[in-house]
Amino acid sequence: MTISRKEFLKLSAGTLAATAAGGFFSFLDAPAGFAEDILHSERIRKVHDHIAENKARHIARVQEYLRQPSVSSWGLGIRECAELLMSYFKRLGCKEVELVKTDGHPGVWAWYDAGAPKTLAYYIMYDIQPFDEKQWSSPPLAANVVKMAPFGDVIIARGAVNDKGADAMVFNALESILEVEGKLPVNIMFTCDGEEEQGSPHFHQVLAPYLDRLKKCNALLMLGPSQDAQGGIEMALGSKGICSLELVCSGKAWGRGPQHRPIHSSRKAILDSPTWRLIKALNSMVAADGNHVLMEGYYDAIRLPNKEELQLYQTLVQKSADQLLVGEKENAKVWMNGWPDAEAVRHLIFDSSLNIDGIWSGYTGPGMATILPDRAAAKLDCRLVPNQEIAAMREVVRRHLDKHGFSDIEIIPLGGGDEWSQTSVKAPAVQAVLSVYKSYGTEPAIWPREAGSSPEAQFTRPPLNLPAVYGGLGHGDRAHSHDEYIVIEGNEKVAGIVRAEQSYVDILYAYANWPV
Amino acid sequence: MTISRKEFLKLSAGTLAATAAGGFFSFLDAPAGFAEDILHSERIRKVHDHIAENKARHIARVQEYLRQPSVSSWGLGIRECAELLMSYFKRLGCKEVELVKTDGHPGVWAWYDAGAPKTLAYYIMYDIQPFDEKQWSSPPLAANVVKMAPFGDVIIARGAVNDKGADAMVFNALESILEVEGKLPVNIMFTCDGEEEQGSPHFHQVLAPYLDRLKKCNALLMLGPSQDAQGGIEMALGSKGICSLELVCSGKAWGRGPQHRPIHSSRKAILDSPTWRLIKALNSMVAADGNHVLMEGYYDAIRLPNKEELQLYQTLVQKSADQLLVGEKENAKVWMNGWPDAEAVRHLIFDSSLNIDGIWSGYTGPGMATILPDRAAAKLDCRLVPNQEIAAMREVVRRHLDKHGFSDIEIIPLGGGDEWSQTSVKAPAVQAVLSVYKSYGTEPAIWPREAGSSPEAQFTRPPLNLPAVYGGLGHGDRAHSHDEYIVIEGNEKVAGIVRAEQSYVDILYAYANWPV
Repeated sequence: MTISRKEFLKLSAGTLAATAAGGFFSFLDAPAGFAEDILHSERIRKVHDHIAENKARHIARVQEYLRQPSVSSWGLGIRECAELLMSYFKRLGCKEVELVKTDGHPGVWAWYDAGAPKTLAYYIMYDIQPFDEKQWSSPPLAANVVKMAPFGDVIIARGAVNDKGADAMVFNALESILEVEGKLPVNIMFTCDGEEEQGSPHFHQVLAPYLDRLKKCNALLMLGPSQDAQGGIEMALGSKGICSLELVCSGKAWGRGPQHRPIHSSRKAILDSPTWRLIKALNSMVAADGNHVLMEGYYDAIRLPNKEELQLYQTLVQKSADQLLVGEKENAKVWMNGWPDAEAVRHLIFDSSLNIDGIWSGYTGPGMATILPDRAAAKLDCRLVPNQEIAAMREVVRRHLDKHGFSDIEIIPLGGGDEWSQTSVKAPAVQAVLSVYKSYGTEPAIWPREAGSSPEAQFTRPPLNLPAVYGGLGHGDRAHSHDEYIVIEGNEKVAGIVRAEQSYVDILYAYANWPV
Repeated sequence: MTISRKEFLKLSAGTLAATAAGGFFSFLDAPAGFAEDILHSERIRKVHDHIAENKARHIARVQEYLRQPSVSSWGLGIRECAELLMSYFKRLGCKEVELVKTDGHPGVWAWYDAGAPKTLAYYIMYDIQPFDEKQWSSPPLAANVVKMAPFGDVIIARGAVNDKGADAMVFNALESILEVEGKLPVNIMFTCDGEEEQGSPHFHQVLAPYLDRLKKCNALLMLGPSQDAQGGIEMALGSKGICSLELVCSGKAWGRGPQHRPIHSSRKAILDSPTWRLIKALNSMVAADGNHVLMEGYYDAIRLPNKEELQLYQTLVQKSADQLLVGEKENAKVWMNGWPDAEAVRHLIFDSSLNIDGIWSGYTGPGMATILPDRAAAKLDCRLVPNQEIAAMREVVRRHLDKHGFSDIEIIPLGGGDEWSQTSVKAPAVQAVLSVYKSYGTEPAIWPREAGSSPEAQFTRPPLNLPAVYGGLGHGDRAHSHDEYIVIEGNEKVAGIVRAEQSYVDILYAYANWPV
């Protein structure tokens, strides 16, 4: 059952729930057998076979890319990794391959032009998180192939799944198409970020010189391992924005309390305290529950979830409400307000929130030190849903502080400026991915929006306005932790490197053939 | 002009102010010429001469004691220093010299018995602060004699003035009396603390075995350099108590929010925050100004300043209100509520205060880290004035938290339990010190109470109830900082080692001869 946008708007909540029972493939508008016709073609089978035949070479390429360090926060191997990446693009036959200077680590631009009707934008992060080598069972830059139950062979390396190992598999898939077919079925504009692990603070500078070219793109389609350890696939069609701020309350700016450095705490009897002041300011921002935001205008820009988002949500929780957050329950006994799981998922998707990421002032070591600190600071993040914008949110905080007499409290913007992003399930790129999953008989769980944030909005919002989707088989885990891995061999449920690369080929051809 | 306790109670505020104009010696009840008669005696002059003749040996002894490390927080040289100290007491001819075990570093007990009518209790700290040797112009354990304008020769060393160098000068003075007179004019019970720099957490264990003996004491009289760099002398007849607490708010104890470790900050949409909760709890404790405490019962036990304390205060500010806090003005532009200096001094002496020494939660480094912390903590200290007690104050905080729904917030007691202490200016030991200063023509500035805290209350409050006073010439500075020093040569205003040691002799004899 498929539902048009027009029909959607007429649906009552009850109907939505009934529709939800049809599962996620009810959101697919493809002609019957669409993906099967393409994917079972002789041409695609040849590419699949080529991938299987070149497995050893493909594994070696994943290892090569992972063995090149690129730790952005250490400044380790960044330039060398950018150059290795550029060599890959040259091997693909890209017509433009350029290192892009930014105020931080450089980006990379590459344009593959097949003369095809459709053009994809593609986002690549080529940097990795730092690591503490002694915690690893296999060295994080060795990219060794090791056994890991129940997946058989895996590669353990920093960046294995986030994202370099995964990207190397995509490059393998693209090269396989070229080796069999001579050209890709779509044009691709690659935009590569060397600072994703630092919040992509300069990625807009990577895009800026190429915006005119990028306007020709039809979608941001990213390929990679989307399976969990049991083979299940989750998709998210949007992300929240994040407005990160540091609030600093200092005696110096206030003109009261200690001015230049902490003073003996006995002086509290005659001196004001910037620390108490910051607490008063923070206290004024949220209600007694620490959840509801009291700042005027904080919620004003929010649009309610639309019918499509609500129906995706209802399908999601009807399918598996108790499974969606299961991984987090060990560290979270009870959801806010005692919400049941389905309700928690709704709030996780659709609610804006204000968090204290950190707060500090004065002496924080063992025992006591009797000081009256001259400054106190807190890091906050507001998670933003449509149509809350970062700049407007900073203004909300500034106005609130000013109105409550805290105009001396400084606001330092932090982070890379990830705005919210939202793509419709009806976007051809999403439909193409869904059609491939349907042909596999694997129904994904689609979150209308993930609770996290990403630089995706730089593609999905003006001036580019592209739909964005991420799809493909394969599995890896432990991003940002030790023993990060990506599955090479796989099992009945989880795709290994061959099956994963084949799925990337399938998605590209499905999208290329999608009737638009 | 001297004023009896009885007369005091009849005085109006106006009269107090008029009396204050008489200066601090108006508090002295000694017979005319009392100190002069003693100090100009042949016996005392011989002791003075002996000190002058042995200057080189006395300097060497100060160096010897300072060269023995005793950094309590590093555990460096503590036992060896305790043994060196015991050897000094044996040299004095003490009838008991004992190492006293505690749950921390050991204390030392020594009892010198002259068979004299009066017995002093004496407090010695033999530990020193840590140091960062590279910041020092002369190595902190070398105790070199170096030139420092305008004082001539000084000794630079960690502990030079706080307190080991000063104590070595006192030992020199005592030994000089013994060498000339054969015995001291008073009996002395020495109680020595190896953990003063850690807040004296076990000093009560040093006193406990000797309480019966200590009940025979008449006063806690401590000798040492009391002059500032211009030669002025400040005395304080009391100190505030300090109730130090750490408040810990954890998801685990609360049963809400992250339970075991931080969680991704996007989860704030569905999880409560222990950090916001701690802010709400702290906010409830003080008024909007961050100064007035709102906890029920916080102020209840406070007794108003008595006439003597008020008159000392008025004398103090009439004499030099604008000078009393001058050293702090560079780091404190304006006092609380815009108080003028005299008013600030009043509040500094007589007010209880609630300070945040430190607060911390989550990520506090550069940039951002998007986490919802599972715990938040703050260190508080309440400065207590008579009759606020530490245990009662902990109860006030506990009751407040419970009453406001924060019963899960844990209170961890910190610190060594210094209660407030108060001695009357009329105590014979204080009068003896004053009489000596008067004979020198040097009027001290007497604070009825200092704003800081000390273990003094273990002597001045039950079961011992001793008056406590600290006096003597000499100067040193930079305690807890680098290049800590004590003056050896001196100038017209500031006493060098000879004049300082002579003043200790004078005070001991003045007290021994005081008619009680």
